[in-house]
Amino acid sequence: MAAKDIYHDTVITALEKDGWTITDDPLTLKIGRRTAMIDLGAEKLIAAQREQQKIAVEIKSFLSPSPLKDLENALGQFIVYARVLDRQDPDRLLYLAIKNSVFKNIFSEEIGQLLLETTELRLIIFDAKMEEIIQWIP
Amino acid sequence: MAAKDIYHDTVITALEKDGWTITDDPLTLKIGRRTAMIDLGAEKLIAAQREQQKIAVEIKSFLSPSPLKDLENALGQFIVYARVLDRQDPDRLLYLAIKNSVFKNIFSEEIGQLLLETTELRLIIFDAKMEEIIQWIP
Repeated sequence: MAAKDIYHDTVITALEKDGWTITDDPLTLKIGRRTAMIDLGAEKLIAAQREQQKIAVEIKSFLSPSPLKDLENALGQFIVYARVLDRQDPDRLLYLAIKNSVFKNIFSEEIGQLLLETTELRLIIFDAKMEEIIQWIP
Repeated sequence: MAAKDIYHDTVITALEKDGWTITDDPLTLKIGRRTAMIDLGAEKLIAAQREQQKIAVEIKSFLSPSPLKDLENALGQFIVYARVLDRQDPDRLLYLAIKNSVFKNIFSEEIGQLLLETTELRLIIFDAKMEEIIQWIP
């Protein structure tokens, strides 16, 4: 089993403050003989639409010496999980959760902007100290 | 500078046997303040079309204990490089070079097939012993 990200509990708290109920910790997906584990599954009742919104959340710290390598690896994991979810749980939207300082660093540079514009990457940006969600992209 | 893949010279030989001229080793791309280095750039004259075909080749060994993690990381690197090439050198097609045994393993499983069907991933499959290209996908 993969080690939990250092912001695991922070993101749970931030999601709960935002009205989400954590339903899976982790969310396990089987594809053929492989098992992929996404950090969290969560649900929220959208009252206006009277429907349950479902998300999957993968948390990434970007702690390696190379932010570009971290970005490549996070994107690869995102695309693999997104494709498996498309097939197995198509109503659930996948998000990558990163803290504000990571967003202000690599994701605000040309390479990060390029990937946000040209891939399906979706972000939850959180404030680690306040334990709150700052922004959803898109 | 990143370490060269153990099949670096093997893939050069296989491409040359297939009529390609290695033009870049590595192929360096700049995006903002980041530098990405793709293992090889190569060109081939397609006589019938009287034009130069250009490729970029990233070589991956899949040597880690987790083929799924290797696949995620290789896919992430591929998508990042492909997006940068789209913008900076749109006539050059990017390929991921893997040996035959890797293709027969993770890429022949459900997860590998799913990614080949639903992403832009392009593969060069080589025989490491013969130092020859076996297949281009697609």
